[in-house]
Amino acid sequence: MHMMDTPLLLTSFLDRAERFFHAKKIYSRTSPTTIHEITYKEYVKRTRKLADALTKLGMERGMKVGTFAWNHHRHLEAYFAVPCAGAVLHMINIRLSPEHIAYVINHAEDEILLIDDNLVPLIAPIVSQLKSVKHFIVMGDAIELEKIPLPNALSYEALLAEANDDFKFPDDLDENTPAGMCYTSATTGMPKGVVYTHRSIVLHSMVAGLSDSIAISEADVILPVVPMFHANAWGFPFAGVLFGATQVLPGPMFTPQLLLDLFETYKVTLTAGVPTIWLGVLQEQRENPRDLSSLRLIVCGGSASPLGLVRGFEEEHKIPYITGFGMTETSPLVSLSTYLTHMQDYTNDEKMDVRITQGLTVPLIETRVVNENGEVPWDGKTMGELTIRGPWIAGEYYNDERTKEAFKDGWLYTGDIAVVTVDGYIKITDRTKDLIKSGGEWISSVELENALMSHPKVFEAAVIAIPHEKWIERPLACVVPKPEFKESITKSELLEDLQSKFHKTWIPDDVVFLDEVPKTSVGKFMKAKLREDLKDFRVEV
Amino acid sequence: MHMMDTPLLLTSFLDRAERFFHAKKIYSRTSPTTIHEITYKEYVKRTRKLADALTKLGMERGMKVGTFAWNHHRHLEAYFAVPCAGAVLHMINIRLSPEHIAYVINHAEDEILLIDDNLVPLIAPIVSQLKSVKHFIVMGDAIELEKIPLPNALSYEALLAEANDDFKFPDDLDENTPAGMCYTSATTGMPKGVVYTHRSIVLHSMVAGLSDSIAISEADVILPVVPMFHANAWGFPFAGVLFGATQVLPGPMFTPQLLLDLFETYKVTLTAGVPTIWLGVLQEQRENPRDLSSLRLIVCGGSASPLGLVRGFEEEHKIPYITGFGMTETSPLVSLSTYLTHMQDYTNDEKMDVRITQGLTVPLIETRVVNENGEVPWDGKTMGELTIRGPWIAGEYYNDERTKEAFKDGWLYTGDIAVVTVDGYIKITDRTKDLIKSGGEWISSVELENALMSHPKVFEAAVIAIPHEKWIERPLACVVPKPEFKESITKSELLEDLQSKFHKTWIPDDVVFLDEVPKTSVGKFMKAKLREDLKDFRVEV
Repeated sequence: MHMMDTPLLLTSFLDRAERFFHAKKIYSRTSPTTIHEITYKEYVKRTRKLADALTKLGMERGMKVGTFAWNHHRHLEAYFAVPCAGAVLHMINIRLSPEHIAYVINHAEDEILLIDDNLVPLIAPIVSQLKSVKHFIVMGDAIELEKIPLPNALSYEALLAEANDDFKFPDDLDENTPAGMCYTSATTGMPKGVVYTHRSIVLHSMVAGLSDSIAISEADVILPVVPMFHANAWGFPFAGVLFGATQVLPGPMFTPQLLLDLFETYKVTLTAGVPTIWLGVLQEQRENPRDLSSLRLIVCGGSASPLGLVRGFEEEHKIPYITGFGMTETSPLVSLSTYLTHMQDYTNDEKMDVRITQGLTVPLIETRVVNENGEVPWDGKTMGELTIRGPWIAGEYYNDERTKEAFKDGWLYTGDIAVVTVDGYIKITDRTKDLIKSGGEWISSVELENALMSHPKVFEAAVIAIPHEKWIERPLACVVPKPEFKESITKSELLEDLQSKFHKTWIPDDVVFLDEVPKTSVGKFMKAKLREDLKDFRVEV
Repeated sequence: MHMMDTPLLLTSFLDRAERFFHAKKIYSRTSPTTIHEITYKEYVKRTRKLADALTKLGMERGMKVGTFAWNHHRHLEAYFAVPCAGAVLHMINIRLSPEHIAYVINHAEDEILLIDDNLVPLIAPIVSQLKSVKHFIVMGDAIELEKIPLPNALSYEALLAEANDDFKFPDDLDENTPAGMCYTSATTGMPKGVVYTHRSIVLHSMVAGLSDSIAISEADVILPVVPMFHANAWGFPFAGVLFGATQVLPGPMFTPQLLLDLFETYKVTLTAGVPTIWLGVLQEQRENPRDLSSLRLIVCGGSASPLGLVRGFEEEHKIPYITGFGMTETSPLVSLSTYLTHMQDYTNDEKMDVRITQGLTVPLIETRVVNENGEVPWDGKTMGELTIRGPWIAGEYYNDERTKEAFKDGWLYTGDIAVVTVDGYIKITDRTKDLIKSGGEWISSVELENALMSHPKVFEAAVIAIPHEKWIERPLACVVPKPEFKESITKSELLEDLQSKFHKTWIPDDVVFLDEVPKTSVGKFMKAKLREDLKDFRVEV
């Protein structure tokens, strides 16, 4: 043994927080009127109590413990109590359909479920379908168990009140021990599970602290808007504990107004969420400005940000706004649109063009954009499929035949179509299935959408393929106007605007005005739904 | 395989540098008048060539390849070519005695030696004692092989000229494969070897990029003054390649004047070295100021920094100056005197007191200061021995019986005596063997030294124990005055100054004026030598 064979374990994060960051704070909203304030010392104590309580209920190594909850301190306690005890934290996406929720709980074989009181109505109707769950534990500030329509429901706080805070986490775990799992929606069929390990989460957390990455630090006040039931909340809760950042957890309410209030009140420095969130926040900030001088970085992921959104934060508010790429399968951090030194000399427009890419691949991760000729040239034009490998990239779907569709030759094939800029930045142009192939040429619906969304009268836009006799597929623009332009907006002004930016073959054949773009549970445009809704649409000639 | 089992390998650093940082620069001084400028693209190409050339000479997996060299680009090429090929880079401390140099080469069983042309005179006299070396490769800008007094010497540049730059590094190495080794001087006997692995170096490099640590970044221009033959140059060369920092390697010359010239010319942002270096640099900067506005951080390690030195940089020049703790056995990064958020409210004096500690333990490493009662209280007073564990801490000395003296129960026992501040910062008070035990009470020679060195007339000071009939041991101050005070300084003014700061039992019994304090090869005070020189010293009563 040349070097000590110290395993990479989440337990070390808790120990570190307890020793060095005990006085730092976690703020946790559990209702519109309640914000809890606990120190890391109390947090670690409660986490030990939770582990003790769960162990008394029968939690053992390898057992799956599900959470069905918003972003708050109790969820954060489960984030560590379960894996540090050697069990597996299954973060269930509350926005799945009831059928899919039952499926993922049964497929993971969750034996204990931790459920927010306000989410019980989503679980109660499917209780009879759950095959493995032995204990339902309800999280909330004032649980009246007799009113909870779940069998033998237990109160989280009552369990903690009786538990010991000197619970000792095991010190003999292997770093490849499963620690967490999430399911991701599939194009067809049931969700697919991904299992994270202590090692993968530790390494992922370290990257989040790098100066050239998100640079999470003890000096930060972090507010993850991204849900803790979605891809580890992009790793923020884990990195937050490791580095001792102040955490602000927004609970079940995250309207633009409430988020901006939290940013201002707690002097938030770092936040993360999907573009839909930031569109709303930007609009609210324009109408009712708050003091956002503490905010040093907004991290956006999940889907591409329209240029107008990035400009809104960077130019109007001088807040750096970076885009990241990630998936449930990738823990999720793969790339970030941070700048390289030579970009200091870029014009502002060039800088914004960097910001809207999915960015530069982070250390320890490899990405390749490949087509039938191998890796594509870094020309910003040649498209290929994004493939990824690295120590926090899934190697398989959990007990799932579909593993072989996505994992080949040691690489994850993402199904995302991308180009690579001359600087090596990934730019997602489309999902394979969303690409429009018109007359043998690929048309990027994402680029058309971004252009449409930068139009001053447009709030949101999605571009889908519609069948076409001659060209096989043609683009159709589905546009949600801003409320004040609902009456005055015209198809022709939108199409004229596009004509100035794209080759004529790219111009959508028509524009449909909608009240909203249907979205997936994680806020991505649900193009399959749009295509279904508009499947009989024909362009009027 | 839940997550991909991607090993942590140095090869990934090279790949990353080649892909993303190919246009970044490495500046390398090889003589007082020669500074090479190469891009990372050329650097990686040359590194592949070196691996090809060494492989043709018989380098294979596990073979030890020694380097005997200053900080320059060729040494940096060896830093990666050797381990990425699966062999082991043995960085030999050129400041060891000839006897010890022969010992470490024989003990490591180095089969190839890479030697700077200007260091050949240190190897030539001991060639006959070297048992394992098959090839001597001489590094320099204009090698005349016929003038090299080594058997069958080869020219580094001639080998590269004939080598292929498409050498493929193996992709099947285990992350626990040995990558590098260094020897550290022992109190008695021959130096002891430490073997680093790919995993340990990768994890150590990641920590160097953390926002809360040294935060090495692509935007940095790093200049490690700490030699590349000493504890991996504190990890700077490895982290520099991983993060794509511009590197400035100062070669065989690093006088204060030359260092300051490099800082100014290349707009260095980050540098690292021992206090002796910074004492000289500070003095030169006071006399001949350069523009140091680019410098964002000085990292100091190896021994404690006098308060006056820290104040000089932080207050006079507004350059953050942090102290770190590390050893050859610890890769070396263990702790750093960065600030925690609540220290923003500290007075300037309190902040300086933080800076001169050895700092807060970095993520993934555990430290405990222990005495016979277990872990000492965090009171800044109670002394104990510093113990360390973590994934880049040695688990043993290489083929050495002395392993059992330092490694116990999974911890490294450092032999350093420390206290822990209320904030959890380590403060080294002495080496076990340097502690002065007077009348049953411990006296810290380091604290006395720091006080003496903050006196305006003192350049350097060491405090050693001298035998005493009644108290067993008593402190003796050995003082080097600043040149301009050589004639005017008096013992009494120094002792009076100490009397205002320490309990009377701590005041040295006498002061001896010296021209210099003898130092070890790595710049630490060689107190054993002082004690030997002064062993017959008796205080005049």
